[in-house]
Amino acid sequence: MGEFGVINRITGRLTQGPDVLLGPGDDAAVLAAPDGRVAVTTDLLVEGRHFRRDWSSGYDIGRKAAAQNLADVAAMGARPTALVVGLGIPADTPVAWLDALTDGMRDECAEVGASVAGGDIVRADLVVLGVTALGDLGGRPPVTRSGARPGQLVAVTGRLGYAAAGLALLQAGHATEEFAELVAAHRRPRPPYRRGPEAAELGATAMLDVSDGLVQDLGHIAAASGVGVAVDPEALPVPETMRAAAAALGADPLDWVLGGGEDHALAAVFPAGTALPDEWRVIGRVVEGGGVQVAGRAAGRAGWDHFR
Amino acid sequence: MGEFGVINRITGRLTQGPDVLLGPGDDAAVLAAPDGRVAVTTDLLVEGRHFRRDWSSGYDIGRKAAAQNLADVAAMGARPTALVVGLGIPADTPVAWLDALTDGMRDECAEVGASVAGGDIVRADLVVLGVTALGDLGGRPPVTRSGARPGQLVAVTGRLGYAAAGLALLQAGHATEEFAELVAAHRRPRPPYRRGPEAAELGATAMLDVSDGLVQDLGHIAAASGVGVAVDPEALPVPETMRAAAAALGADPLDWVLGGGEDHALAAVFPAGTALPDEWRVIGRVVEGGGVQVAGRAAGRAGWDHFR
Repeated sequence: MGEFGVINRITGRLTQGPDVLLGPGDDAAVLAAPDGRVAVTTDLLVEGRHFRRDWSSGYDIGRKAAAQNLADVAAMGARPTALVVGLGIPADTPVAWLDALTDGMRDECAEVGASVAGGDIVRADLVVLGVTALGDLGGRPPVTRSGARPGQLVAVTGRLGYAAAGLALLQAGHATEEFAELVAAHRRPRPPYRRGPEAAELGATAMLDVSDGLVQDLGHIAAASGVGVAVDPEALPVPETMRAAAAALGADPLDWVLGGGEDHALAAVFPAGTALPDEWRVIGRVVEGGGVQVAGRAAGRAGWDHFR
Repeated sequence: MGEFGVINRITGRLTQGPDVLLGPGDDAAVLAAPDGRVAVTTDLLVEGRHFRRDWSSGYDIGRKAAAQNLADVAAMGARPTALVVGLGIPADTPVAWLDALTDGMRDECAEVGASVAGGDIVRADLVVLGVTALGDLGGRPPVTRSGARPGQLVAVTGRLGYAAAGLALLQAGHATEEFAELVAAHRRPRPPYRRGPEAAELGATAMLDVSDGLVQDLGHIAAASGVGVAVDPEALPVPETMRAAAAALGADPLDWVLGGGEDHALAAVFPAGTALPDEWRVIGRVVEGGGVQVAGRAAGRAGWDHFR
């Protein structure tokens, strides 16, 4: 089809939202940045390391690649506005797969009113995705990792451990219908995008998206803020299907909940006494000191890094 | 060294300019977008296709990867403000090479007052770079590819054919001291960044950076604007060193000048009568019709696509 044929095919499947002032087809896209700032984040995803074409459809890979970047924008308290995507594909990539990938990115963006505003396509021996997401802070200060203070509440929203459980089931050849929800969570995360700006409005003092695992990611807040984080494992939700999957695999479901990344839940710190909407679940407190404690015991990275 | 050790090492070598409101280390960077818009462009570069580690140093690869994206921003008439970079590296990549790559990106950004504001690092079997550049339009409309009108002037600034000549010399095993300038141009382009905003101020009606070759890229302006472009090859600069290199390889230097990309010259269209600074060279005119003519003959892509 040729480079320009592929580009035309992809851009023909996209729709451009109101934040896109100039879309694909020029040297650069132009996006609205209404408050005079822009949040920007980028990830590189490599076939075989971050996804497998035999385990995930092109559509799900597109949704997941978009989701993990849009979630990073939301975790600053910003509203995602657009993606730009560098795409490396082997010469024999089926057009239908490329269509599905494009549709997946487009549809995930549509969940938050964002658009795929531009990109680049090159030949590569493996599928490689360089995804950059941009967002609008709506006049609010960005919610960084460094504002947590002792006595504040630690809360999460979104799913924890689902994607890790789904990956473990796939790796064990145990991806049965009974566990479809967990396997689907590995293939396509569902980050709670709108909770990011909500947390900023509620006065969150620190926030991040849980991409490496809850304990490790709370460790980033602890380190950046110069505090400790005490997690109460009793407060963590462990759904019945995850208990059943853990039993089937001889695993501990809490390993997935505390150590599993890729669900792109949001973890945030709020001043004590903040009235949180039901979607936020308080799971611990900020304390003096450093590091992360679970049930009062220091949680070394080694304890929860099975999924790295 | 581990993922976080590598990240700390890289970010420790960077400096952040005034457009970076929040730099590396959080879920996203935050950049100034002073006029309420942001220009954004992304490229994916794959080892073996876009660069070779045995032909270019890490430093030169870093400069070149940054340059090609910063040039795209300049070609909209914008001032580049920042890069974010997704970096895939093999496990055995020497730290010194990574340092050099980082320094190259940092130094190329410094040429225009931009910064490497964030990124991502992952393992990959080859070096892969996903580079995204952002820029500020300074209140001006973006200069797209679609505004050229018959009777207007076509002008270029920057080098044409140098990188293609240098690549041909390397491929022929003829990269001798005599041709050091051409080989250096392949390794490290020197885009005329500041001429981009200048062209916008001068009233350019269309502009792009010459990355695929002059004829092919002028063809993009012709197609987007619904016009033809007539190039006078006598007006094109062919330096003596390029003539000598062509003689040594049995090549036609005009093939490099008309067909060679990667120098990231700027090609722009201006209203007739525009007083252009000396750095801009008028090389042709916009005409009725379509496509690109060179010396009055239609130039099919096939005529000048040796370097694709």
